[in-house]
Amino acid sequence: MKPISDLTFGRRVMALIEDLARHSDEPGRITRLYLSPSHRAAAETTQAMMSAAGLKSHIDALGSVIGRLEGANPDAPALIIGSHIDSVVDAGRYDGNLGVVLGIVVAEALKAEGIVPSCPIEVIAFGDEENARFPTNLSTSYALSGRYNPAWLDGKDAQGVSLRDALATFRGDPEGIAALTRDPARYRGYLEVHIEQGPLLEAEGLSVGIVTAINGATRARATVIGEAGHAGTVPMNMRRDALAAVAEMTLAVERIGAKHPDTVATVGVALVAPGAINVIPARVDFTLDARSPDDAVRHAMVDDIVQECSAIAERRGVAFRFEPFMDSAATPMDQGLMREFERGVKSLDLPVRHLSSGAGHDAVAMASLCPVAMLFVRCKGGVSHNPAESITIEDADIAACVLIETVKKIVTAQS
Amino acid sequence: MKPISDLTFGRRVMALIEDLARHSDEPGRITRLYLSPSHRAAAETTQAMMSAAGLKSHIDALGSVIGRLEGANPDAPALIIGSHIDSVVDAGRYDGNLGVVLGIVVAEALKAEGIVPSCPIEVIAFGDEENARFPTNLSTSYALSGRYNPAWLDGKDAQGVSLRDALATFRGDPEGIAALTRDPARYRGYLEVHIEQGPLLEAEGLSVGIVTAINGATRARATVIGEAGHAGTVPMNMRRDALAAVAEMTLAVERIGAKHPDTVATVGVALVAPGAINVIPARVDFTLDARSPDDAVRHAMVDDIVQECSAIAERRGVAFRFEPFMDSAATPMDQGLMREFERGVKSLDLPVRHLSSGAGHDAVAMASLCPVAMLFVRCKGGVSHNPAESITIEDADIAACVLIETVKKIVTAQS
Repeated sequence: MKPISDLTFGRRVMALIEDLARHSDEPGRITRLYLSPSHRAAAETTQAMMSAAGLKSHIDALGSVIGRLEGANPDAPALIIGSHIDSVVDAGRYDGNLGVVLGIVVAEALKAEGIVPSCPIEVIAFGDEENARFPTNLSTSYALSGRYNPAWLDGKDAQGVSLRDALATFRGDPEGIAALTRDPARYRGYLEVHIEQGPLLEAEGLSVGIVTAINGATRARATVIGEAGHAGTVPMNMRRDALAAVAEMTLAVERIGAKHPDTVATVGVALVAPGAINVIPARVDFTLDARSPDDAVRHAMVDDIVQECSAIAERRGVAFRFEPFMDSAATPMDQGLMREFERGVKSLDLPVRHLSSGAGHDAVAMASLCPVAMLFVRCKGGVSHNPAESITIEDADIAACVLIETVKKIVTAQS
Repeated sequence: MKPISDLTFGRRVMALIEDLARHSDEPGRITRLYLSPSHRAAAETTQAMMSAAGLKSHIDALGSVIGRLEGANPDAPALIIGSHIDSVVDAGRYDGNLGVVLGIVVAEALKAEGIVPSCPIEVIAFGDEENARFPTNLSTSYALSGRYNPAWLDGKDAQGVSLRDALATFRGDPEGIAALTRDPARYRGYLEVHIEQGPLLEAEGLSVGIVTAINGATRARATVIGEAGHAGTVPMNMRRDALAAVAEMTLAVERIGAKHPDTVATVGVALVAPGAINVIPARVDFTLDARSPDDAVRHAMVDDIVQECSAIAERRGVAFRFEPFMDSAATPMDQGLMREFERGVKSLDLPVRHLSSGAGHDAVAMASLCPVAMLFVRCKGGVSHNPAESITIEDADIAACVLIETVKKIVTAQS
């Protein structure tokens, strides 16, 4: 781990992160919704960082910031490094921003070492990853593979502002969306560094991990309907208590979700009606979120859950309704790019840890354009989407070094 | 069951019930809150019914309607028959009203048969049983044993109207409350007929049942605090899911509540925070309602529940808080009066079924004045506090006959 010790890159990453953290829609906390004034300001700051790093940059029709470093061979398929700069409400400073800033630090490092890459390098700061303002999700990254659905422009935020109008305010260009589509042949891959948003690396004392897949997810709404009754007068053996039924179902979800080491299943919402201390619950509406890096495993897991819940409902004489409304496939990472990351990690004498990503990322959308790979960075307590989000300067330095080594290998190997 | 066949009394009961059901604070449904204009109107109707039955009647300082039939010996301890005429919001027509109307029907029957009771008989229509308007509960019946707390007058309804002001509007008299206190020596007992509000009699095909005790109740608020986390990224074995913990606790409550045939335990409220499909629940606030005719059994049951929940919390690494805020003792019925009801039931060749009351009644308060007993009448589906509340004319007739026989026996035996 020789080049890491003076923390040059770690300090630089933190300085750029701080610079971006100034931009918020709300005083006192970080809220940077897609196409908001603070998003515009952060995009312009990002653009300035890119220019300073020697990248030719612009803000595209959808608000993404694109910085390009031409390669020795300008026609060679380009390598993209990126993530996003929008945030949830009351966010941390690393989610998304870290991956963008690291792309810029790579460009700075190449420039400092006088390295001209064999192929072009693009650094991209996407703008619509968090699904925190409009109904859209990953719309800015999907646009690069021509998958932008024009109907998305009619989506409205909580204030009733359409994405189209917000884009106009931002000085974007709905007419320019189609032209954002890239030719897959011209891109060799997309690398994204992101905080883990989970506790695994911290639990194992590791700075970074290499993502194997972004988990697929099933989301469903479920309803149990039993029968209300007086909590004092209906004997236990004559009840059809919807909450007791959902309690059993919740434990079934937990048990089935834990069957595989990398699957998860969660009941996050449970609304009890009528919800009075002296009334037996008549109805509970709850949700299921089930994820796995393997779609077949996920489907089997959901089938299992539905079967167990149906059996519980039947035994208890309550009605059970299950309505899946999302079935998003897993996104496997590219084996070749994963190996490049592994080489980068090993070049720093760090252990290689593979893990799957439970959360979605721009890499999901970018996989429809080119091969993708992701590097996770340890975050304190596994916490994200929260001001308590935190990484160490040492880990920031290691992440920068791994990415620099990886990119160098890629852009010099094919010269 | 000779005297029952022509349904004279059943028809009369239903006619009086209909007459009372006209009075409501809201068009199209029955809502008759304590001291509301419709309560006043119902009280006056009740008074008119009493007068027609030969009772000397008045509306007392707290709005209770009192009808008195003097006995051959006016100084003999009086027998009281009663229940209440206030209702919940969107109520049924039988809860409370049935017991009042039956008292009047008894007086009518005695008069028709030319029977002069050996002791005075009072029929009372209380006004504050449902706890549906003010914070008070059973205040009008507690007043008869001098247990009216003057602070209750400061209690306010949802519109901010104090009980004191509502009493003035009703033409009641706060100054007259103390004088409502009765001398226990002058009362031999209180009989209350009420719909069961539970499904037992219906399940067993019985018209009436004799209450053994009004269950004591423990009510508590409980809180489980775990840790929020990303539903996609935190592995199952690293979670401290508050909802999964409460699911286990809910099943423990159900199991422990079912240990004795006449105990019940219910989780009626569960509020999940933050309550998002993709966030592991951090906190759940829930309630416990546990009842038993035996206070020792109830306390042991609650101890059991707390112990099990604590063990669940410890095993899962979540915090568990339990705050009981109500511990109301059971009210055993008077053995002597229960035997009178039994004789009444047997005189009609009906089977004697004992059962405890899961719900509270004016008899709880009246037990602080004199011996009490209750007769339950089968109600359709065990439903109460609901417009679907329903009893048959046959059961109304049987209840009237049982009460008439029982009262006759009491008021002629001691002549």
